Amino acid sequence: MKSIIKQEIVYEGIFIKVRHDTVRVKNCEYVREIIESNTGVLIAAIDNRNRIVLVKQNRHNHGDVYEVPAGAIKENESPRQAAKRELLEETGIKAQKWRLISTHHNGVHNEGLNYFFLARDLSTAKNSPDQDEQISGLKFFRFDQINGLIDQELIPDLRNRACIWKAQLEIN
Amino acid sequence: MKSIIKQEIVYEGIFIKVRHDTVRVKNCEYVREIIESNTGVLIAAIDNRNRIVLVKQNRHNHGDVYEVPAGAIKENESPRQAAKRELLEETGIKAQKWRLISTHHNGVHNEGLNYFFLARDLSTAKNSPDQDEQISGLKFFRFDQINGLIDQELIPDLRNRACIWKAQLEIN
Repeated sequence: MKSIIKQEIVYEGIFIKVRHDTVRVKNCEYVREIIESNTGVLIAAIDNRNRIVLVKQNRHNHGDVYEVPAGAIKENESPRQAAKRELLEETGIKAQKWRLISTHHNGVHNEGLNYFFLARDLSTAKNSPDQDEQISGLKFFRFDQINGLIDQELIPDLRNRACIWKAQLEIN
Repeated sequence: MKSIIKQEIVYEGIFIKVRHDTVRVKNCEYVREIIESNTGVLIAAIDNRNRIVLVKQNRHNHGDVYEVPAGAIKENESPRQAAKRELLEETGIKAQKWRLISTHHNGVHNEGLNYFFLARDLSTAKNSPDQDEQISGLKFFRFDQINGLIDQELIPDLRNRACIWKAQLEIN
């Protein structure tokens, strides 16, 4: 019989909180460390030539990288609404077809749901607010180009790779 | 011109540390939050019927789940040595063919490399030390069964899903 006898936020930061759960099983007590992250969406937007939309970003600890459009889910927003908003804001692109392809935690010690969406039937939205600034870093890649980007360390993180891999499996 | 003017460990926990980097760009200073994790390996072990080996685990915050064999890299151990050790310890299985299929960070704000290996030509090792205890939770799944496990919330985390998806792409 397992019971949680204490839950304590031991770190509260910019993107994450860390929680310590003290758990009792029979006469034994132990502590479990849980990372609480914001809920977020990542979008695999695939055009009619089966190319995926990636956006150039500069990350403090990884330098220039390519990422799928992504962002946090705002209050009163569904994951799908957040995905539509983020794709439009970051790329100026709208999609007619949307499908949720994964709902997950980022790790076994993580809480906070993340969502991958597959977006198809793409078109460029006119007059999208952030279009001018963002379009510069926008690029379409074929799936057979992804391993090359990975080899050049331009997609260093697993979340972006996983979203691309899952999308590739879905459209194969 | 960007320079890091301070790096400070603000949380030191069980699995992770959190570091704050204070960065100066021109006359502006800002703080970046980095999660430092242990280096680790995950193994996609595929048998000659193209089934993947998963191990049942109980995770504090997710209950009973299936995971690929995995673990931390010990000091003086290469990622490949760690992968061979973990597969044997958790499943009693040895593999003749090993291939590194991904080297990555778990997220854009993470440091600490993780490695996915594809292991093929499997055989059961005799007298493996942890065999009796571990074999009980061991199971082989076809790739077309994975979405079913995900729908039942038995693979809740992205790292395990991503290792399975990448292996599936590699053997297709």
